[in-house]
Amino acid sequence: MLAVGGDSASGKTTLATGLVDAIGPDRCTAICVDDYHRFDRAERTELPFTPLHPDCNYVDIMEQHLQMLATGQPILKPVYDHSTGTFTRPRYVEPRQFVIIEGLLPLFTKLSRACFDISVFLDPPEEIRRQWKIKRDTSKRGYTAAQVEADLERREPESAEFIRPQRRHADIVVRFAPVPSRNDPPGTPLSAELLLRPTIQHPPLSHILTDDHRTAMHLKIIRDNDGTPVDCLHVHGHANHDEIQMLQKEIWAGVADKREMPEGLGSVGPGERSEPLAMTQLLLLYHLMQEVYQA
Amino acid sequence: MLAVGGDSASGKTTLATGLVDAIGPDRCTAICVDDYHRFDRAERTELPFTPLHPDCNYVDIMEQHLQMLATGQPILKPVYDHSTGTFTRPRYVEPRQFVIIEGLLPLFTKLSRACFDISVFLDPPEEIRRQWKIKRDTSKRGYTAAQVEADLERREPESAEFIRPQRRHADIVVRFAPVPSRNDPPGTPLSAELLLRPTIQHPPLSHILTDDHRTAMHLKIIRDNDGTPVDCLHVHGHANHDEIQMLQKEIWAGVADKREMPEGLGSVGPGERSEPLAMTQLLLLYHLMQEVYQA
Repeated sequence: MLAVGGDSASGKTTLATGLVDAIGPDRCTAICVDDYHRFDRAERTELPFTPLHPDCNYVDIMEQHLQMLATGQPILKPVYDHSTGTFTRPRYVEPRQFVIIEGLLPLFTKLSRACFDISVFLDPPEEIRRQWKIKRDTSKRGYTAAQVEADLERREPESAEFIRPQRRHADIVVRFAPVPSRNDPPGTPLSAELLLRPTIQHPPLSHILTDDHRTAMHLKIIRDNDGTPVDCLHVHGHANHDEIQMLQKEIWAGVADKREMPEGLGSVGPGERSEPLAMTQLLLLYHLMQEVYQA
Repeated sequence: MLAVGGDSASGKTTLATGLVDAIGPDRCTAICVDDYHRFDRAERTELPFTPLHPDCNYVDIMEQHLQMLATGQPILKPVYDHSTGTFTRPRYVEPRQFVIIEGLLPLFTKLSRACFDISVFLDPPEEIRRQWKIKRDTSKRGYTAAQVEADLERREPESAEFIRPQRRHADIVVRFAPVPSRNDPPGTPLSAELLLRPTIQHPPLSHILTDDHRTAMHLKIIRDNDGTPVDCLHVHGHANHDEIQMLQKEIWAGVADKREMPEGLGSVGPGERSEPLAMTQLLLLYHLMQEVYQA
């Protein structure tokens, strides 16, 4: 069971969808835990908090449902209709072999975190996330850019207090961003920086990656914000597809089950691919397969 | 935690409402488990079964939620709107000191039965239940008598297969009915026959009831349908209020917690009372109090 946490428009759905496609939807249960709202949209207008606030959500029920899924039991999941802002018919969800949970607060409590075998937190720079959110909410959700900006501002204190602190509980922190020291032209694909915490056993990247691979990806030990040492895997946005494929194969060779490496990773939209996203997904699939086939 | 099971219009709500009023709504959580339908009304028109059929309900989720409540945890309960036949916003329910569960299938599975400290099954003669259902569904639910009769007929095979067999799992079986051997004029209040199974410890009725009380109530050992011996408490419909009150006080004296005996039991509508119902409710309250104060 994998958690994909992160703020609104941080790339959770893009990441999770790729994993479901790779595993096969018949072996996978994927749900979003942003439907455990305590209030509907009309009620929230009277209240001082945004949907990011834990008090605005039935966190206890979310925990309960995560525990159920983690122990192989079905749930009757609430459904919040984001287009109308009201609650509709709940959905019966049975856990399949792989369970992928995305949302704003999946890593918020100790009990919820205990349900996951692997956890990821998406941590793009705020400026990038802002662009993504404006692009998505204006094109797909019918808001104006000004409305989205106002919403971002209103949510900022609760993002800082409740969403971003979940970063430190993730096994893997993923940051898609331009390389700060470079002056790449606009349109250059984003790189990915993956913090790999020793809370789970990662593939032997320090053996796989040599200096020859530096142009595609490299690994170094850094100090995280809080001073703890952590492995940081950098995947270049302009990495060569064939080279990334070769490295993926070497990583995949360590998977207990020797099935074919999944194809088609890294999709960021119709016809668009990202090598850093593909590598991120492959690493997560590696961990998911290890959980299932080594268990 | 008390289960009140029984077929449609068997008197579950009347019984449960009196208990909640007596205990006090602030100490009581009362829910109906008939909202765990798998299909809404429109979907059911295409299907070969009525809402009584277990396959027409998320019995597994009902079990899960009963377990949650039994262990002191909240649930997000589905809500089926009987007036529109659709599912609406789920309701957050926290268990208070006393939990009363009524419905069609609360005693259907072993796991659900294991959640209850006390269980009652309402078992009126079919002819009486038929009258009650026609009266209620025509006056409160907008159906014609012919529609209700057709519905009763359609449900009969599933009543026989799934609802009535729950009778044998109840600690107490309650049958409100006229006394078969008498020729009471119409309007005579119904008597109650309570089967008291040795699955829970009943008050010492064989000591409390003497021959002097025979006009109000009496106790005898009978053989149940399946041949097992069981105590049968008969409460006369025309029992004298003061005599019933006196007997209730003697029963109540055995309650571990010496609080005042509840007032106002036996209400069957505005200004209408039934001594047999009052005695039934008192017995259930006795058991509920014993559970809480001897636990």
